[in-house]
Order: sequence, then structure tokens, then C-alpha cells
Amino acid sequence: MFGLILKKHTMRLFVWLLAALVCQNAVAQVEDSLLIKNLSDEILLRSTAYENLRVLCKTVGGRLAGSPNMLKAESWGQKTLEQAGADRVWLQECLVPHWERGGTDSAWYSVKGNGNQKVRLDILALGNSVGTGEKGILLPAILVQDFADLEQKKDQVKGKIVVFNNVFNNTYLETFLSYVDDGIYRRSGPSRAAKYGAAAVMIRSITGSTDNNPHTGSTAYDSTQPKIPAAAMGLKDADQLIALLKSGKQVDIYYRSGANFKPDATGHNVIGEWKGTEFPDQYITVGGHLDSWDPAEGAHDDGTGCVHSIEVLRALKAMGYKPRHTIRVVLFANEENGLRGGRKYAQEAVSKNEKHVFALESDAGGFTPRGFSFSFSEEQLNKLRRWLPFFEPRGVHRFTTGGGGADVSPLNALLKTPVAELTPDGSRYFDLHHARNDVFEQVNKRELDLGALNMAILIYLVDKYGLEQ
Amino acid sequence: MFGLILKKHTMRLFVWLLAALVCQNAVAQVEDSLLIKNLSDEILLRSTAYENLRVLCKTVGGRLAGSPNMLKAESWGQKTLEQAGADRVWLQECLVPHWERGGTDSAWYSVKGNGNQKVRLDILALGNSVGTGEKGILLPAILVQDFADLEQKKDQVKGKIVVFNNVFNNTYLETFLSYVDDGIYRRSGPSRAAKYGAAAVMIRSITGSTDNNPHTGSTAYDSTQPKIPAAAMGLKDADQLIALLKSGKQVDIYYRSGANFKPDATGHNVIGEWKGTEFPDQYITVGGHLDSWDPAEGAHDDGTGCVHSIEVLRALKAMGYKPRHTIRVVLFANEENGLRGGRKYAQEAVSKNEKHVFALESDAGGFTPRGFSFSFSEEQLNKLRRWLPFFEPRGVHRFTTGGGGADVSPLNALLKTPVAELTPDGSRYFDLHHARNDVFEQVNKRELDLGALNMAILIYLVDKYGLEQ
Repeated sequence: MFGLILKKHTMRLFVWLLAALVCQNAVAQVEDSLLIKNLSDEILLRSTAYENLRVLCKTVGGRLAGSPNMLKAESWGQKTLEQAGADRVWLQECLVPHWERGGTDSAWYSVKGNGNQKVRLDILALGNSVGTGEKGILLPAILVQDFADLEQKKDQVKGKIVVFNNVFNNTYLETFLSYVDDGIYRRSGPSRAAKYGAAAVMIRSITGSTDNNPHTGSTAYDSTQPKIPAAAMGLKDADQLIALLKSGKQVDIYYRSGANFKPDATGHNVIGEWKGTEFPDQYITVGGHLDSWDPAEGAHDDGTGCVHSIEVLRALKAMGYKPRHTIRVVLFANEENGLRGGRKYAQEAVSKNEKHVFALESDAGGFTPRGFSFSFSEEQLNKLRRWLPFFEPRGVHRFTTGGGGADVSPLNALLKTPVAELTPDGSRYFDLHHARNDVFEQVNKRELDLGALNMAILIYLVDKYGLEQ
Repeated sequence: MFGLILKKHTMRLFVWLLAALVCQNAVAQVEDSLLIKNLSDEILLRSTAYENLRVLCKTVGGRLAGSPNMLKAESWGQKTLEQAGADRVWLQECLVPHWERGGTDSAWYSVKGNGNQKVRLDILALGNSVGTGEKGILLPAILVQDFADLEQKKDQVKGKIVVFNNVFNNTYLETFLSYVDDGIYRRSGPSRAAKYGAAAVMIRSITGSTDNNPHTGSTAYDSTQPKIPAAAMGLKDADQLIALLKSGKQVDIYYRSGANFKPDATGHNVIGEWKGTEFPDQYITVGGHLDSWDPAEGAHDDGTGCVHSIEVLRALKAMGYKPRHTIRVVLFANEENGLRGGRKYAQEAVSKNEKHVFALESDAGGFTPRGFSFSFSEEQLNKLRRWLPFFEPRGVHRFTTGGGGADVSPLNALLKTPVAELTPDGSRYFDLHHARNDVFEQVNKRELDLGALNMAILIYLVDKYGLEQ
């Protein structure tokens, strides 16, 4: 009898505890749903991301590391973070490479037997490339299909301008894979051709676009080879030139580039901090990079990442949210041709023994969001995927492995900080990446706001629940 | 012992049958994967959708039912379907309404006490609206927030121009819901105001855009009320005008519209047929609508739906596919202000006792695909969702209920044909829907091709496996 009573009591206690637990979970879920609905309304109705981006693109414009515009962009970042409500905004100094285009690139070609007719080539020197000297170079062109073909023709390239017929592979379902695949010609093409005595290299721009805008981006010289000038051609011009070379015509190319390196300049990461209430010494970072290539406004690359990150802070703060951890918005210096800002941020975190809980980057454009890519294993991700119902109605339908953005990767490498990156729809990104059409007008307000919204939801959930589960 | 042998034999037979079944399924799966990969490459490398769209937008342009451009568009459709490889192309005649804008709409307003200053309003008469007469009207404006406010002000609207402050609700996660919600002011606003003696109605354009382009679209008069002129204002102009009215200023609006109805004209559905090898008398329809509003090129609405559908046929045929059912590509007449084409197609199917297995429409723009919406229950959809792995890497991640497009809905209503619609990302659609910026340049080639690809996969799977499962 007594046992039965005890059992009854234990049973009641158990049921009560279970009910409390269920209730607690249910309450938390309702709380999350409500907060996320409010966050959604806050951003979809009152986001300042689009207007912030307009000011960055139209009053600063292109902002290559070391350029005067880099400093103007830093001022913009400082002011905009203050307006968004950061408790404290500061500049974290770091040396950045100072590569200059040195005036407008110029190129044309002429076909033997076609008089003196010069056909203009729309080109851009690759970032970090050497120039040609003031007079430029006028040399015979040689068509090279790929690196295998280069090996075949290694005795024929000496003193010539190697024209690579590197084609962006549209059959990849993820355009980022096409970019990585084709990008090897931009990064390694110049030095691989220089090895056999080539005088310069021209590649097809790394894009599947339908227009003729050339796309720049860093090349990486192999220090054991001579550095030769390298440029990217617009695809329509490249198609015409390559068709001539394929038909066996003898073509001379003229190319002039004033590209040159100056000594390293002083740049800064712009950091806005919002103090945590419970773990003020534990950091959650959200950021994008402030620098951009010179011929564009750097709207999608990566103005959108900067204004996304600023909006996360503004919106959560505007709602009266109190973060448990300290949230830092970081506008990184010099992603494009050095990654010095990302490295500096991580090195300082190491030297100050900071605890970094999570770092999120947006550096894949301000297009409609589709997912987040994490530095986690599939197993860890499966646990996080219970959060997907908060994201799915807002466009993010996948959590994938693959790591975070370039600027947060040093945090992951040095401190094992879990990192992630927003992965928007990639259909349009490489149509404008590093090209003159990467301008404010290419950004859609709602797509931009949806990106900020999904990032804000992720930051909220990580701040509230952590990632150790 | 004998029993054991029998058992052994039965067992072997069972295992063999099971293995055959598993193998058959496995073979079918591999076959599907290979075919879909080839289809993917065919469309991503050789799609003609973008070039077809360019020709439609740039050589025909806007193509409202009854207009000379409607006939030019029909010729384009006929020729393009023949080039895509249809066995037979024909025009299915149907009468279409013939509403005309009658020249450029013109409007301005002046504020009492502000001299004779006329502030221009960028507006478009709503489709099917009556005009104002040649001289136009100059009348006092009255601000009405919504239909509840109209009831409050019913004694004040007589002889005035009612300005509705209908705001597009950006907090909806699906912009199509915002459109339906706000669109009631376009459809019903004029007659509801006319009931109380209003002389004309101006609404805010049904859009959440950041620009000032006005957006037209059909209004629907209540036959028991007088028909009064109705127009949509660009949002920036509307904001300014409404701010003045809110501040209590007395504002007069001038409005001139030559809008008028002519007798019904003869239009056509353009139909391209590809004979089925196994069930030639059973039809799978895939289509979009060929008509568009007059002030735009009708690129996303619905040029993309037409070229999507044509590409489905072209790509499957180019691969040597032999359809089991007869596939029909239908470019429907007069979706925008009548739905006469869709009705005609279904009525003829009924009168000819045709068996229609499935009908798919694309009429939500050529943006990056996200899903398909079906006329099925959740339970039926759950069975179809086993196909999702074929779609997910190509952008389509959801099958939802909700039905098909407008033009295929009569097939569903009259013949119970299962119908579906491509549901691309909706972020940008209402920024250009029925407005002058719905032009070819707003369409991205890769996004367009991904839409066609996912449609082609769905048509292939339905053709191969049917929907009765």
C-alpha cells in the first residue's frame, strides 16, 4: 500500500516534472517564434541595409586596399555602426598590400593580312599583376586550351602572349564550383606560362555572363618564375579573338597596363561591439569585408555583407533584445588581395586570449538566401537542423558543410572557432563578380533584407542556445 | 525433406524475385539520374530560352489581347515552336476582349494656396478601366485609408477622386500573399468607391518596389455600380500626394485617360504538339501565357513562361527522348484581362473528350526556381516528394499545395486534370509586375534556364511514371 502510494507520488512527480519540461520547451518555442516574427517584421519593414548600401556604393564606390577610398569606406563603416547602435566602435589597425591599377588598361589586336585594323579588347589587369611599362607590349598571340595544351606547346610560347581558352563550366549546379574550377587559370595561369617564357597572359574572365564586361580578381605568382603581366578579357571579345586564333590566323596583341605595387599601407578592420549581459567576455562575430575591387562599386562583393552584418545588430537592438554574449560586427579590411584583415582579427583574438563562440560571414552576395554553410561535420549539422523550421519560410532551406567565409576562416584555423557563411542563390553572382557591373542597382532590397533576416535569426539562436549541444 | 527443398526453392525464387525487383528499381533510378544529368547539361549549355525571350521582348514587345502585337506574338510563337521541334503547330481560335489604353495616361495635382503649380503624377490606367473623356477631369481628392475608412467617409466622397492608401504588406513572407491582400483595392476599389458617388479612383501600385514606376493590372467592375475611371500611381508620387492629404491640404487632381473597350477580337492559343509513342491520345500540357500588359515587354509576365515551356520540348527532343504521352506546349491567349485562352483550351478538351494527364504552367516569373505548387492534397504530395532529390540540387526544394497557374485552372475545373505551377523565388516579381520595367534586361539567363530545367524534369517524370500512385 505504502509502496503503491510512493509509486503514485513518484508517478505524479515524474508526470509533473515531465509536464514542466514539456511546458518549458513549449514556452521557449513560442518565445522563439514570437521573437523571430518580430525580428522579421522589424527587418522587412524598417531595415536600413539598402539605404546604407546606397551610401557606401554611391558616395564611396570602389575601395581597394591601400586606396584613398579604403579610408573613406572605413569612415562610412564607423559612422554607420554608431548609428546602428553599437556600444563602442573602433578601428583595428593592420597593414594591407597596396596594389594599384595605374590608370586604364588598354589592349587591342590586329590580324596579319588585315591592314592596320586594330580591334579593341575590353580587358582588366588581374589584381596583383605587374604592369607592362608605359609603352606597353605588342607581341604575337598563341592560343592555349588548358594546362595540358600548355605542356604540348611549351616550346612555342616563348616571347608570346598566351591566350587561355578557359571556359566557365555552366553544367556545375553550384556556380561557386565553376568559379573554383575555372579560377585556377586566373591564379596559376600567368606563372605556369611564364615558366616556358611567355611574355604575358590573357584569360577569359571567370564568369558565365552574357555580356562583355571583364572580371578582375587576384592572380598568385609562383616566386620561382618571372612575373609577367596578366589580364582578363570580356567574354564576347575573347570569343572573337579565340575564333580567329583557332582558324589559324596570325594575331598580334597590344597590351598596356600601369599596374604596380606600392609599399604596404595602413588599413583597418572596423569593429562595432554590443556588450553581452551574461558572457561579456565571449564573442559572437558577424561580418563582411569592406574592401572591393577598383572598377566596381563592390555592391554584392561585399557591400551587401557589410550592411547585412550591421543590420543584424541594428534590428536586434531596435527590438530591445539583450544579447547573452558580446556581439561584434566586423567590417574586414583587404579580403580581396591579401586577407590581412581577417588574419589580424584572429591574431589579436589569440594574443588577447579571447573566447570566440561563433563567427558568421556574408561574402557571397546579397541575393535571395538559400542556406548557411558551416565548419561542422554532417553529424553536428544534423543537430542544428532542428532550427531549420525558423528559416525555411524565410528562404533558407539548407545547412551544409563546407566552412565559413574567407575572413572568418583564420578564427577557425587559429582558435577552432565554429564559423559559417550565408549562402545565397548563386545564379547571378559570377555575372558581376569583380566586374564594373557590380553596382548598387544590381541589388534588390527585399533579397538583401531576407539575407540580413536569416543572419539575425542565426545569431539570435546561437546567442541563446550556443552551439555545444 | 521435400518440404525443405520446396522451401529452399521458394526461398530462392523469392530472393531472385526480390533481387530482380530491387535491380529493376535500381536500374530505373540510375536511368533517371543519367537522363536528368543529360537534360541538365543540354539546358545549361544549349538552352534557347534566353535568345527566344530576347526576340519576343525586343521584336514584339508588349502584346495586349486584341492589339496588333498580339498577332505578331502569335507568329513568333508558331515559328519558335516549329524551330523547337514540335511535330505540329496550330492556332486555336478564341475571342478575346479588346481593351485599349487609348494614348498616354496623364495626371497631375495642385495644392490649394500653392498658386498654379502642377505636380506630375506617374500613373497608369488600370486594365479594363473606363476613360475620362478627352478633356480629362479636375476634381478634389479625398484620402481613404482602406475599405473600413471608406464606410466612415461614404458621405464625403461624392464627386471626388478617391485616393486609396493601400499599402503593400512587406511582412508577408510570400510576396504573392501581399499581392492578393493588396490587390483587392485594384479589383474592387473602383466599384466600392463608385457606390458612394466617387468620380474616379487612384490606388497605390500593387508593389513593394523602391522606384516610382506605376503598375497596371485588371480592375473588375461591379455591374450594379457606375463604372468610374481608375488608375495606379507610382509609389513615390503616391507617398508625396498622400502625405499632403494627411496633413490636411486641399488637393485637386487632374486625370486624363483615353481607355476604352472595342468589340471582342479574334486571338489564338498557339499549340505545339509532340506525339506520344505509347499513349498518343493522352495529353501532358506545359505552358505560359503569350499576352502581356501594354506598357512593358512582358518579360517575366509571362514571356519567361512561354520560353520555359518551349525549352522543355526542345531539350527533351534534342536528347532523343521519346515521350509516352503526347506533350503539348501551349502559349495561352489573354490571361491578363480575360483568361479566354485557358478557358477555350479546356472547353475544346471537353468537347473532344480528350484525356489530360497533367498540365503545368509557368506564370510567376523567370527567377531562380524554388518549388512547384500542385492541385493535390498534402497526402498525395507526400508520395510525389520522393522525386525531390532530382530537383533539390537544381534549386527546387519544395512541393506545395495551392494549385496550378491561371491558364491551366480551367482544365482542373472542367476535367479534374491534375495541374501545377512553377514557383520561382518571389522576391523581385512584384517590383516589375505589370510595370514598364518588366523588360528582357531584368531576366537572368541562368535563372531562366534553371526554371526550364526543373519543369523539364517534372514533365519527364510525370510522362514516365504518371501521377496515379
